[in-house]
Formats: sequence, C-alpha cells, structure tokens
Amino acid sequence: MKPRARHSLLTTEGMSRSEVESLFARARVHARGLESGRSVRALEGKVVANLFFEASTRTRLSFERAAKALGADVLNFTAQASSVVKGETLMDTVRNVEAMGVAALVIRHSASGAAHLAARHVRCAVVNAGDGTHAHPSQALLDAFTLHERWGSLDGKTVLILGDVLHSRVARSNLFCLTTLGAHVVFAGPPTLMPAGLEEMGGRLAPSLEAALAEADAVMVLRVQGERQTAGYLPSVREYARLYGLSAERAARLRPGAVVMHPGPVNRGVELAPEVADGPANVILAQVSHGVAVRMAILEACA
Amino acid sequence: MKPRARHSLLTTEGMSRSEVESLFARARVHARGLESGRSVRALEGKVVANLFFEASTRTRLSFERAAKALGADVLNFTAQASSVVKGETLMDTVRNVEAMGVAALVIRHSASGAAHLAARHVRCAVVNAGDGTHAHPSQALLDAFTLHERWGSLDGKTVLILGDVLHSRVARSNLFCLTTLGAHVVFAGPPTLMPAGLEEMGGRLAPSLEAALAEADAVMVLRVQGERQTAGYLPSVREYARLYGLSAERAARLRPGAVVMHPGPVNRGVELAPEVADGPANVILAQVSHGVAVRMAILEACA
Amino acid sequence: MKPRARHSLLTTEGMSRSEVESLFARARVHARGLESGRSVRALEGKVVANLFFEASTRTRLSFERAAKALGADVLNFTAQASSVVKGETLMDTVRNVEAMGVAALVIRHSASGAAHLAARHVRCAVVNAGDGTHAHPSQALLDAFTLHERWGSLDGKTVLILGDVLHSRVARSNLFCLTTLGAHVVFAGPPTLMPAGLEEMGGRLAPSLEAALAEADAVMVLRVQGERQTAGYLPSVREYARLYGLSAERAARLRPGAVVMHPGPVNRGVELAPEVADGPANVILAQVSHGVAVRMAILEACA
Repeated sequence: MKPRARHSLLTTEGMSRSEVESLFARARVHARGLESGRSVRALEGKVVANLFFEASTRTRLSFERAAKALGADVLNFTAQASSVVKGETLMDTVRNVEAMGVAALVIRHSASGAAHLAARHVRCAVVNAGDGTHAHPSQALLDAFTLHERWGSLDGKTVLILGDVLHSRVARSNLFCLTTLGAHVVFAGPPTLMPAGLEEMGGRLAPSLEAALAEADAVMVLRVQGERQTAGYLPSVREYARLYGLSAERAARLRPGAVVMHPGPVNRGVELAPEVADGPANVILAQVSHGVAVRMAILEACA
Repeated sequence: MKPRARHSLLTTEGMSRSEVESLFARARVHARGLESGRSVRALEGKVVANLFFEASTRTRLSFERAAKALGADVLNFTAQASSVVKGETLMDTVRNVEAMGVAALVIRHSASGAAHLAARHVRCAVVNAGDGTHAHPSQALLDAFTLHERWGSLDGKTVLILGDVLHSRVARSNLFCLTTLGAHVVFAGPPTLMPAGLEEMGGRLAPSLEAALAEADAVMVLRVQGERQTAGYLPSVREYARLYGLSAERAARLRPGAVVMHPGPVNRGVELAPEVADGPANVILAQVSHGVAVRMAILEACA
Repeated sequence: MKPRARHSLLTTEGMSRSEVESLFARARVHARGLESGRSVRALEGKVVANLFFEASTRTRLSFERAAKALGADVLNFTAQASSVVKGETLMDTVRNVEAMGVAALVIRHSASGAAHLAARHVRCAVVNAGDGTHAHPSQALLDAFTLHERWGSLDGKTVLILGDVLHSRVARSNLFCLTTLGAHVVFAGPPTLMPAGLEEMGGRLAPSLEAALAEADAVMVLRVQGERQTAGYLPSVREYARLYGLSAERAARLRPGAVVMHPGPVNRGVELAPEVADGPANVILAQVSHGVAVRMAILEACA
C-alpha cells in the first residue's frame, strides 16, 4: 500500500479557510482566462483520467473541459465499457490507470468512500467527483465560489439547503465548505430525509421552511434523486413538490437579492418550479461556468 | 429566451448560393490542408461539443475529426451516458453545456426541430447534425461539394434521389441545396414513401425509375432505415431491393460518367448492390473525405 | 482491394529479431520521454482511430495514452455506439474511417482474422489490438519488453505460460515473440485447454506444473475468461483455482528472482492469488507502464 497522495481532493471536511481561498484566487485567474480564450496551460504534457463508475453528464464534461483548458490530455473511462464488468476491483483499475502515467484520477463512484480507498492505493492525485452519499467537494467549492464572486465574502451570510439532505453528498460537502468560509447553514426538507447530527457538523435545522426562506441569502435546492432513493421516505414526488418544492410563491418570500442555486440536473416542477429555475434569482448557469474555473484550480493544485 | 445565434447551421433551406459557394471555397482550402497534413488551426483554444442524442458513427467521428483538425478541444456527449435519462430537458442540457464555455454545439436528435429549439436557447453556434426526419444540412453540403468538385458546377445537372424520401432528412436537405446550386432534382422510390409537395419545394417526381436513371448525372441512394420505419410502407426489405435497389443491371442504365452516392452506412444488397457500392461509378468514400473538409468549413464559419 | 499496408502490426508471427529489437530501442526512448514528461511528438497532426468492436479498458486507454503522448489526435469508436449494430460490414467501417484521413487504425474484434481482413481493405496502417483467439501482438511485445528491460536479454531464459492456452491470443502471440528473442517457452494448464501443435510452433508442454514452476524465470499467468469460454473445458472456476491457480504455495516454488506476469484484468483468487498478484515477484504494473511506451513505438513505426 502506497502513501496517500498529498494533493488529492477527497472531501471539503477539514479544508482550511486559507486553502479554500487560495483555490478561489486561482479559480478567478482561470475564469478570466476562459473568458478571454487564453487559458493557463499549466498541465501541458500531463494526463488526467476521468474514471466514472456512475453515470454523469455535467460533472464529467466539466472536468474534461477544465483539464483540456489546462492543456492536459484526457482519458475517459466509464464503467459500462470497462473491465469492471469483468469483476476487476476498483483498486486494480485505479492502479492500472495510474501506471499508464496519469497525473490525476478524477473518480465518481456510487460507493461512499470509493475515492478515499482509491487514494490509498495510488501515488498520483485523486479528485473525488462524487462518492455515494458521502462527498462531492468540487461541487461544494464551485457553489461557494459562485456565492463568493457575488458577495465578495460569505461571512455572516445564511445559506439554506433544501431537500433530501440525508442522501445528498452535495449538502454534506457544502455544509463543511460554507461554514469554513463563515456562512451560517440552515437545512429544511422532509423530516424523514434530515440526517441526525447536523448541529454537530455546524448546521442548523430550520423550524419551518417559511422561516428559513425569510432569512436566507441563498437557497441551494437539492435534486430529488428519483423514486429509488426516496422510496419509503417520501409519499410521492408530487407530494414532495407541494410541500418542499421551491415554487414561485415560496421564492417570493425570499429577501430581495437572495439567490437560487441547484447542482443540476433540475427536475422542473418537482424540487424547483420552472419559473424559478429560469427566474432572475437563479444563478444555476453561473454555477456551471464557475465550475469549469474551480475545477481548473483543483486540477492545477492536485496534478 | 436569448436571441438565436447568428451563425448556426440548422437547415439548407433558405441558404443563398453565395453562402454555399463561399463555404465550398473554404472547404477546398481545408481539403488541401488535410491532404498535406497541415490544417488551418482556426479554432485553437475553442471548444466544440458533440451532443448526440441518437446513435451515429460516421457523422460524430467526422465532426470530431473536423473540430480537432481545426485545433478545437472536443467534448463528446451521448444520450445513453447522460442526464437525459434522468429526465433533463434538451433545453437545460444545451444551456448547461454552453455555460461550460463552448463555441459550437453539434446536435443530433431523433426529434425534428430539436436543433432549432436548441438554437433558440443558447448564444453559441448550433450545428444541426441531423434532427428526426427534418434536416441534415452538413450531409447535403458535403454531397453537393462532392459533385461540385467533380463537375466544377452543378448548373443544369440532374440528380436523382432514390428511396424512402418520406423519412429522409438527407433527401430534404439535399433538395434545397442542390436546387440552390442550379441542379435539377428528381425523386424515385415506392409511391408510399414519396411525400406530398415535392414539386412545391423545387423537385420533380420521376415517371419511372428507368426513365430517371437514364437522365441522371448522379444518383443519391437513400438508406433503408430498417423494419421499424418502413413497417406498413414496404412489403419487405427483399421486395424493396427487387423493385428499387440499385442493382448492377439498373446501374448499367446510367449515363457514362454518372456517379453513385450514398450517405452511409450502406445496406449492401438492399438499396445498393455490393458490386455497385464498390464499382467505378461510386463516390462514397470521396463523400466521407469531403465531409471532413466541409464540416471544417461549417465549424469555422459558425464557431 | 487495395494493397496490404506495409507497416501494419497484425501478428508477432514472422517478426524478425531485429524488427522486435529496434521497436524495443524506440520504446526505451519513449519510456524515458514519458518519465520526464517530454514525449516525442512524432505524430503531431496525424490521427489515430481506436476501433473497438469488443469491450476493453486497459488496451484502449493504453493505445489512446500512447497516441496522445505522440501528439496525435485520437478518434474513439466502440461497437455499441456504432453503425455496426445497423449491420454495416467491418470492411465498410474501416474504409469509411480511413477516408476521414486517419494514419492508423487500432482494431480490436471478437473474430479471429478481423485485423488482417481490415488491413486488406485500407491503405493506412492497421494495428491489431486483439482479434478473437488469434493474436494480440502489442501485448506480447510489451510482455517481452518488460522481461528484456529486466534481464537485458531473453536468450536462454525459460518462460512458463500458464492457463487456458487454447483460447488465448496472448499466449499465441507471446510464443512467437519470446522464441524469436531466444527464450524457451513452456506451457502448463488443463489438458483440455492445451491446443495441439504447440511443439511445431516452438513451444513445449510441461510434464507437470510443479516441474515447470521450478525451471521458470518468468510465469505468464493467463486470465480465466469466465464461464462462457471454459464451459465444457473446466469442471468449475473453483476447481481451476485449486489445480492451476498460482497460489502463494505454488509461487514459493519459483526460483529466486523469477517474475510473475499477468495481462490483466486479474481474477483475484482464480488464476492468481491476491498475495501473489501484489507480491514482490509481480511485474504487473510494470507491464502496464511499459505498454504505453511499446505502443508508442508501434504507432510511430506504423503511422
């Protein structure tokens, strides 16, 4: 077993404020480079491998876009077309791909802990692109960066995370990242989908959705993950939409200037009403654009 | 809703002769560049995304080859491995991919009108790589370019389009493009597979296949799309081959110098006999080669 | 039918010792280039197409990595997403991809002879990345290169190939390559999975696995291909592991310094015990690393 890679990004838990802020400083440089069409070719001659053991569009494309903008060669690997079907272990796969001369492995996997496990078996950098219900650090960093670019600072701001927190790696990673940057994090959603221990992690459960909306500077709307995960937790998707969906009516209770976020893809009419998804408060596409710059900063720091 | 992108290529309908001819002039430059191995790197630092919501080999590879020859970074996205299965709308997908900093979206979709719809929701260029039974403009342009390079001009030439015209986006796009360039377009095939209104669009229905073959300078053989689409329209594939397939015997009725074209992939022994597909009159591989140069010209003009 | 490409790599059968050794000399240059992050950009402006009609992870990624390290543009094509499902012949596919301006086609196919067939229909280089049970020359070359780098020379060394030789393209290609380089090749495995004629091809059947282990300088452990191929040949996978798997106990009978190889992916606990796969004798990851360098040498020589 090799030493764990020093520059992997596995979780936002434990990242220091200065670590996050220097990443943001680089992301800002990359965002300007992308806009001008002259990006920093910091990974010229290096290889980034995207190992996606779980379906994804935007995260994979975003990492690929980021790596190519940095001048890296990109190898794409998806589980369907892979040896994984032949029963090869995750550990064997990552060690083999590393042996091809890869600087960074970007890994998405349906099992919580997969990226950590991988990082224990390779010397190259591992970037966690989402593991089970555990963590999705690049998403949290791009979310926080989007707010940071808008507000200048997150200190004292209140961010509401709304929805199925129990199954959400996005919620968990955002909680750590946002509180590190000085924001207050409030949760709302179906009681059956609120994990225990949110207070211990620095968050707060809202007394009611209405109260939470009234005090939020930003609402992060979580995706309803479909029937499979919510079976037994939710009466129905329709019921969810009625009780917890961010409708136009609920969005109207937000403070002036409050923003609406979503990690995508949006279930229009379920967790987010179409008019809110496209409304003036939404920063969903800014999240996507900033995502490329933030992932460039991550890959640059890791690889 | 954002303004429709100015430089999208959605259909050949309404393209002016000078537009087509200046595209051909650039395609000629690119064809020479490809041959010499020194292509014009006009899209260096730009990103082209291939969004293929429908299976395709050669069109996707051809666009990818073209984009890379221009120096662009290419992002590939196919519907199977995508959020589309999670129910994300086409509109959300294209807006998200655009937000990653993409100069051009190349879209194939099984729904007629998909590329137009996409173009109404993004500012970047949209290139229609085939939408339902509606249009396939890059195919029509490469077909016309192939004839143009051979003949010098299409003025006064007669092109026969043979087969299932009803379901063919290739036939429709070719009709507009060829007539714009001064050619006469004649159609032949099963009466049940001839759409109404061909005359209004500038074409002509052949009195018989035999008469049409005798007067054609080029025959474009359409692909039989398989049992699904032709169910109820055709007695059987075998019957189709017998009545409308371009057999060696039928090909022998063509004028000396007349060429045989096919958009690929060929159903050998169905719409085209193997000895004709490989015979001296066929320009099928020239179509493929010219396709790369024409798509370079399209991407260069759009992105 | 066009003349067969001069610089294709279809099989190791018939390769001369000097051909193999000059390939190794280039592979050594590329291995150093990869280590220093400054690889020879010998294919800048050229295109390599990976046509994989059969699932593969590491071989496809390794060829892609090699081609990109040489500066080539890479087009990836897998059968699932392709026209092959529409019934296009292999011959049509390769001719079409060639017509897009491709310097080399890397082909994997489940039918023995597929790469030879392809090479007869194109002028560009064809690299056989595995065809049925016939040949897998790049794997054999990287295996031999791994031993060559370790030993300086293969002359007089004894290599044991252990397992399902009957269905193994790896075994066949290694036999030719290793004997050409002066090594002795010994085979062991279930009698039902030993093809006739190994002696005529320059190999030798071991009297017993124990005897073979005692005299081997290297053991190449073949992958058990799963239930499908071994049905009727093997009582069960468990029985195989017990009788022919390289357990820690059997590995202990190897000479000091003898190495254990596997083409991957490993079925841990079937043909190879986990403690041997990860043990000090294994060179499995060195095979993977050398694979990139060897494939760079192959593509450079071919394209």
